This record gives sequence, structure tokens and C-alpha cells, in this order.
Amino acid sequence: MQNRRVVLASRPAGWVTEDNFRIEDAAMPRPADGEVLVKNLWLSLDPYMRGRMSDAKSYVKGVDIGEVMVGQTLGEVLESRHPKLRQGDKVLTQSGWQLYGTTKEATRVDESKGAPLSYYLGILGMPGITAYFGLKEIGQPKPGETLVVSAASGAVGSVVGQLAKLWGARAVGIAGGAQKCDYVTRELGFDACVDYKAGNLHRDLREACPKGVDVYFDNVGGEILDTLLRHMNLFSRIVVCGLISDYNATEPYALRNIRAMLVNRIRMQGMIVFDWKERYGEALQALAGYLSQGKLKYRESVIEGLENAPRGLIGLLKGQNFGKQLVKL
Amino acid sequence: MQNRRVVLASRPAGWVTEDNFRIEDAAMPRPADGEVLVKNLWLSLDPYMRGRMSDAKSYVKGVDIGEVMVGQTLGEVLESRHPKLRQGDKVLTQSGWQLYGTTKEATRVDESKGAPLSYYLGILGMPGITAYFGLKEIGQPKPGETLVVSAASGAVGSVVGQLAKLWGARAVGIAGGAQKCDYVTRELGFDACVDYKAGNLHRDLREACPKGVDVYFDNVGGEILDTLLRHMNLFSRIVVCGLISDYNATEPYALRNIRAMLVNRIRMQGMIVFDWKERYGEALQALAGYLSQGKLKYRESVIEGLENAPRGLIGLLKGQNFGKQLVKL
Repeated sequence: MQNRRVVLASRPAGWVTEDNFRIEDAAMPRPADGEVLVKNLWLSLDPYMRGRMSDAKSYVKGVDIGEVMVGQTLGEVLESRHPKLRQGDKVLTQSGWQLYGTTKEATRVDESKGAPLSYYLGILGMPGITAYFGLKEIGQPKPGETLVVSAASGAVGSVVGQLAKLWGARAVGIAGGAQKCDYVTRELGFDACVDYKAGNLHRDLREACPKGVDVYFDNVGGEILDTLLRHMNLFSRIVVCGLISDYNATEPYALRNIRAMLVNRIRMQGMIVFDWKERYGEALQALAGYLSQGKLKYRESVIEGLENAPRGLIGLLKGQNFGKQLVKL
Repeated sequence: MQNRRVVLASRPAGWVTEDNFRIEDAAMPRPADGEVLVKNLWLSLDPYMRGRMSDAKSYVKGVDIGEVMVGQTLGEVLESRHPKLRQGDKVLTQSGWQLYGTTKEATRVDESKGAPLSYYLGILGMPGITAYFGLKEIGQPKPGETLVVSAASGAVGSVVGQLAKLWGARAVGIAGGAQKCDYVTRELGFDACVDYKAGNLHRDLREACPKGVDVYFDNVGGEILDTLLRHMNLFSRIVVCGLISDYNATEPYALRNIRAMLVNRIRMQGMIVFDWKERYGEALQALAGYLSQGKLKYRESVIEGLENAPRGLIGLLKGQNFGKQLVKL
């Protein structure tokens, strides 16, 4: 048996292209003492990966040229030299873009809850937990307030809007294109959705949010964040969760409307899901509960085959996916 | 007896000039039922006044053309038709730039504390209270942390740095010119002061803050805020208290380093002192206590005569003042 993996071949300048990756065959890894050998079943594709492909300073180190692309996977333990894991266990690991991996750091997934395994990379994984803590701890929507979330049809945004509604707020999404906006309002149940590609974001937001915006959950940054600053109410909150628009820009977008921070006493705060590591259990319990009661809708976008992962990431960064983007290995 | 006042003659485009003001004689005002007639002794000059001269949306309405310039004064009650105030009382009012005014809204100053009356426009007034709540409630410096404050020799900044030191943090000022920096370190006791006019702000900040910045109390905005974003530590806080650099710009400065908000999970929050109105007493007690124990140093910059108030404001906006800027009427 051989391993197969995707490595970073070169750093992108602006948009990612398939040339930035190389697919390699490699020897089958062997677990050292304390490790498991995992066969990866699902690979999660996420916007943060764009950041790791660059060498700019960020909250974690980037991928080196020639190194396996980072990423979270859901897999099955083939062989265990780990004290707490057994052959056949389903586990989350940071194996990256490859068919097999060895690691000491694997988290067993609780199959008894009945959720599909792939959900642990999405609504019951990082994206869902990000939505939960970002909204609950930073956004803090109150009943009757208006929440806006960008990338509303994505893995994080779709959960943010639905949680806001469950907690009594009005939810308005921002998404690219009529089809996504339709999904956000009809399937996810948001109160409204603004298509930023229609080119009238400022005016359309005013219509969708006649009482202004109390919480903006920002997954994109850039011009959309700058426009939102003009709509924020007194004592409103901005959750800075992702800056996908900047990830592909060679020059960062420069924010012009920062004065609103003072005029309206806005609180803006950056977040990363790791910061709540000790409380993941709380989020999982809440999310699994809502799911089992049919109160959270969720959709996945699946690409088949490791060799198609680069194309999947490029599509994700261009906003072509619909819901959580996964690769079935 | 006649009144004399300064009205807004025209709106500034960019920097304020003396042409934007007109000095007028006017009839002596008479107090209506419930009002006092006040003889103003001191007029406070503050950066926010630049904002009121423009008609851009802000947290309060701007001054209309031909209207008396807004401003807080300390005065003496000449005649009272107010239920709780008597002739001879010393009061704070929003009379604006004039020798006499009538109002229902006057706050009696407690002369028993022994502080000079003018202090109630500065360290025991809005600027001192702004420093107190902005630092305590938003900046939240912990012992051993590094605080940076801009406009460090000014009415707010000088108190911010001294309070931070009293509360166990390291205080670094930013001021314009060697003379101000000297004052900030030698007289006010800050640990360091960076002269932004020297032209090496980024490098000089790195030297003055070798462990990075945990709290940035921002009185200026613009390029200085943008540079600070590069120095902020993980989980650091930015207090957005003033954007003086933008007040005189025809185009707002555009922030490039907003990505740091996410990378370092920074919390940035705008503030206005009114938001703590119910707790002013707490701040005054603390500030008066520190003052009486000699733990807070304070300096005033005094201009004589109402007709010189425009020149005083222009100087303040250009950073020519040293400590709290007052007009003695």
C-alpha cells in the first residue's frame, strides 16, 4: 500500500491556482509509539487554508514549500500504538491533505449521537463551534436586534444566522448570487439576504435592515466590512471571524469608515475558535441538540477524490461552494 | 452690560482658520423661569469641537452657521430662577463661546475639595473622567502590561498614562516633539515617550515596547492607529476615544492593518464619556483622591480673552498646546 498526498508546490500571488499544488505518492507512514495510523475518509476545506499558503505572519505558522497541505480530516484508526484509541475508532486529526497519516493528536468522535461522520468537520466541528462562540460571546445578539452575517450560505455563516434566529434576533445574510440568497432565506430561514454581487450593497442593506445593524458577524472583511460600518447602530458589535476577501488580495483593502467606531461606540473583536477550546463540549451539546430537534438546517458540498482537493479549495475561495465544502477520499 | 460671543461663520474645509469664526456683540441674555444667568469665567477648548464645526453625521448634531460655538464653561451664577441654584454658585454649563449665558442645565461644582475651579474643566471634568472610564472599563490594563496612549501630553492622555501606572501597568506615551516627550516622561512619570514627528514611529515603538502593546488608548486615529495595529499583542485592547487626525482631513485615513484584529484577537471599542453619566461620581472621587495625594500631575495651557478662543482651538488642533487648553474669560 502506498500513501498519496498533496503538497504546497509554490506560494500563490493573489488567487490560488492548481499550479500551487503537487500530488505525490509516498511511502505508507508507520505509527511510532503513542501514535495511531489513520485512514482519512473526509478532508475539510476551509478559507483559513489560503492564509497558510502564504508566509505572512498569522496566528499559526504557514505551510513550507514541499510540505503536505494542512487540514482537518475525519478518519478511521487502522493501527493503534496510542494508549486510548483502538483500531476501528473514528477520529478527527490534523493529518492534512493525504490518504493516510500518523499522529498522537486524534480526537475520537462519538458515533452514538447518530449524526453523519462528516458533520464533525462542519456543523458539529470547527465551523459550527466558531459560529456558536463568536455569536454567543462576542456578538451577543439580544431578542429583537438585527444580525447581519456575510458568507451566509457557508459553513460558519449558515449556523450563525440560524442560531441568531433561535436566540430571538432578526437574521440577515449576505451572499453572492440569487441562488445562494434563495437558499439562505427559503431553506435556512433567514429573514432576508442581500446579494453583494448585485452591486448595491449599501442601498440593499438599508432596505434589509431598516432599523440598522446591532451585530455584524464578519467572515469576509474588506469592502463589505467597510460598508457595514455605515449601518452599525449605537453600541453594536462586530465579530471579526474571517477576512477571506483579503486572503487573495495582493494589497489589503483599506478601511475608510473607522470613524463609525467612535460615533456609534462600536465594539469590534477578532476571534479564533481555539480560544474556546475548554468549552467545545458546551457548543457541541447545544448544536447537536438543535440538530436533533430539526432546528438547524445544514448542507454539504462534496468533491470526490484527493486529487480534486486543489480545485475544491479554489472554488471555495471564489465562493462557488454551497454549504460546507468537503473532499470524500 | 452687553454679551459677547463667538459664532460659526463658515465650515472649515480641512484645517480650521480664524475666518471660520465671527465675534459678535449681543444683548445680555435674561434667565427664563427655571434658568440661571451665568457669567462664564473659563471656557474649555477640546478636540471634539472640530467635529461640531462640520455637518457630517456624528454622535451629536453640529453647530449651525451663525450659531454660538459649543463648549463647556465654568461660571458664576449672577441671577437664579432655578429651584436649586443660588447667586454666587460656581457651575459647569454648556454655554458655549460667550461671556454670559442662560440655561436650565447647570451643575454646581463642589468648592470644598480645594481644587482650583478650572480643574473641573480638565482633570476633574470631562477629560479626566474620559481617561478614567476609557481605561478602566475598556482598556482594562493588568499589572505588568504595556499601555500606549497618543496625545500623551494632552488633557486626556496625560491622565490615562498616570492612571495606568497607578494601576500597575507600564505607560508609554506618543507626543509631537522632544519638549512634549520630555514633559511626559520627566514630569508625568511615563516609562517612555515616542515622538511621532521624528518620523520613525514603527521602529521607535518597537524599541519603547519590547514586549508589544496590551492596551492602546487612541486619541488620534489615522496613521498612528494603523501603526499601532502592528504592535498589538494577543488579546489586546484598543480604546477609540478620539480621531483628531481625521477631524482636519478632507478624506479619512484608510486603515490597512485591520487583519491584526483577527490574527491577534484584538478588541477595539469606541467610547464617549456620556455613556458613563451615572457613574461620574465614582470617577471624580478617585481622581480627586489621587490629586490630593499628589499622585496625579496636571498642567493647564491658558489663553486670555474670548476673542482669542479661535486661535486657541486652532493651536489645539495642531498640537501646540501643553496640557489642558483653557480660555480665561
